[in-house]
Amino acid sequence: MAEPLFRRLVLIGIGLIGSSVARIAMQDRTLAAEVVANARTQATLDRVMELGIADRIELDPAKAVLGADCVMLCAPVGAYAALAEAIAPHLAPGCIVTDVGSTKQSVIRDVGPLLPAGVHFVPGHPMAGTEYSGPDSGFLTLFQGRWCMLTPPPGTDEAAVAKIHELWTRCGSMIEVVEAAHHDRVVAIVSHLPHLLAFTICGTADDLEDESRQQVLKFAAAGFRDFTRIAASDPVMWRDIFLNNREALLEMLARFTEDAQAMARAVRWGDGDYISDKILRGRAIRRSLIELKQA
Amino acid sequence: MAEPLFRRLVLIGIGLIGSSVARIAMQDRTLAAEVVANARTQATLDRVMELGIADRIELDPAKAVLGADCVMLCAPVGAYAALAEAIAPHLAPGCIVTDVGSTKQSVIRDVGPLLPAGVHFVPGHPMAGTEYSGPDSGFLTLFQGRWCMLTPPPGTDEAAVAKIHELWTRCGSMIEVVEAAHHDRVVAIVSHLPHLLAFTICGTADDLEDESRQQVLKFAAAGFRDFTRIAASDPVMWRDIFLNNREALLEMLARFTEDAQAMARAVRWGDGDYISDKILRGRAIRRSLIELKQA
Repeated sequence: MAEPLFRRLVLIGIGLIGSSVARIAMQDRTLAAEVVANARTQATLDRVMELGIADRIELDPAKAVLGADCVMLCAPVGAYAALAEAIAPHLAPGCIVTDVGSTKQSVIRDVGPLLPAGVHFVPGHPMAGTEYSGPDSGFLTLFQGRWCMLTPPPGTDEAAVAKIHELWTRCGSMIEVVEAAHHDRVVAIVSHLPHLLAFTICGTADDLEDESRQQVLKFAAAGFRDFTRIAASDPVMWRDIFLNNREALLEMLARFTEDAQAMARAVRWGDGDYISDKILRGRAIRRSLIELKQA
Repeated sequence: MAEPLFRRLVLIGIGLIGSSVARIAMQDRTLAAEVVANARTQATLDRVMELGIADRIELDPAKAVLGADCVMLCAPVGAYAALAEAIAPHLAPGCIVTDVGSTKQSVIRDVGPLLPAGVHFVPGHPMAGTEYSGPDSGFLTLFQGRWCMLTPPPGTDEAAVAKIHELWTRCGSMIEVVEAAHHDRVVAIVSHLPHLLAFTICGTADDLEDESRQQVLKFAAAGFRDFTRIAASDPVMWRDIFLNNREALLEMLARFTEDAQAMARAVRWGDGDYISDKILRGRAIRRSLIELKQA
């Protein structure tokens, strides 16, 4: 059998993404000879053993990373700084630290400076997900045909980048290496802003006077239903994402708000051409997505 | 065989909703003894005959409604006034005129006054749909388990309301009779505002500088993808809906915008509790929807 890509892969956090990687690594043993899972609670780790998706569990992150040649942070990005502080003194030289967080400048800011010399840091973001969370929610095909962005800071060890590239390739992803700042702008519009809008409209509906609110639930048509699906995502993870991609998210929201106000003005003054032009552009984008097989 | 509900059902417009009703009526012959389809173009009507979803086609709406005991308007709501003017002189006494439009006060305003005495007007709105349009897009189960709202103005003939109630029941819908103004408020938040937001975010993304726009298409994650699905809907239909539910839509957008700005403020000032509270409310609404089997 070929040498596995990693001897010991340690997953810090074992929710949707972490437990999907774990499932893949437990099935494809060329990925890691040993899979270690760490989580915030023993209950989660017990569940991991019940599910059989790790070789070993360890509640203390400092102990979990001992002897690892790859540590993947799969916790909400707001927890990264504390986690990095806890594990940094225990990382072996040559170990690769990577992550799956949805914000990349914040991760480089929070984790990078804490890592000892000789440890390689390759930030990553697999662009895949569902509205479910926890160790039960992962599955083997989550990353199939989906993009994974890597944002190694300038000067990152190229062999380390190549190994993380290979890890995600074996998970079924297509890889793109981009600058962290550019990543953060793109995800602000394709993912973070849609989630902010979805969370917000659910709140707006929930604030309606009682009778209307009941009717909203009763008559939730296509449209609102889709928004609530997005809005069902994990609150801690998304809170952390918003707070850690603040600048890009606020800029995209500001642009969006201008556009929504322009639409409101067209509705108020009966400018039908403006409205149908905007709808036609939406359709064109949809068509492009279908051609690119992202929809 | 039992007497059919209607002798001659005339569908004015044969897109997603009209062609679904046509398919149901052609299969369940207790609904209408004869199904007549009218559309704006001969090409659409030729396609209707190819599909075999009507007994007869007629390009002139005035001729189409001759001898009908039920006329259902299934065109974009902006076309209703002209259509009502065209068909009104040709409606037989006792005929029921109904519709499937997404705005109900505007329909009562545009159609009601034009109908001759002795013709009954029962506005309706089946809350069902997909992002597809045209005669090919309809299907037999579109209305199964979905709500249909009826908004008969005060004084409407009760037997006429009962027959339209029965028609939608046979199509698989659950029926609710509500005031038109109330209907318009509820759909503004559950359907019209989500569509406005979806159209707008596609435009915002399309306006990004070229490199980012390409990346948006490439990395469209869950979230943006769902929005583009909503945004793929028919431009004329949605333009008409926005213009004909102006007051309610603008009010819901104003409420939403206040809420989005409050969220932006929380992101800017790092108010994590505010953000997670809003996300938790979204999840609660999602759960209610699942309990009500609307999701």
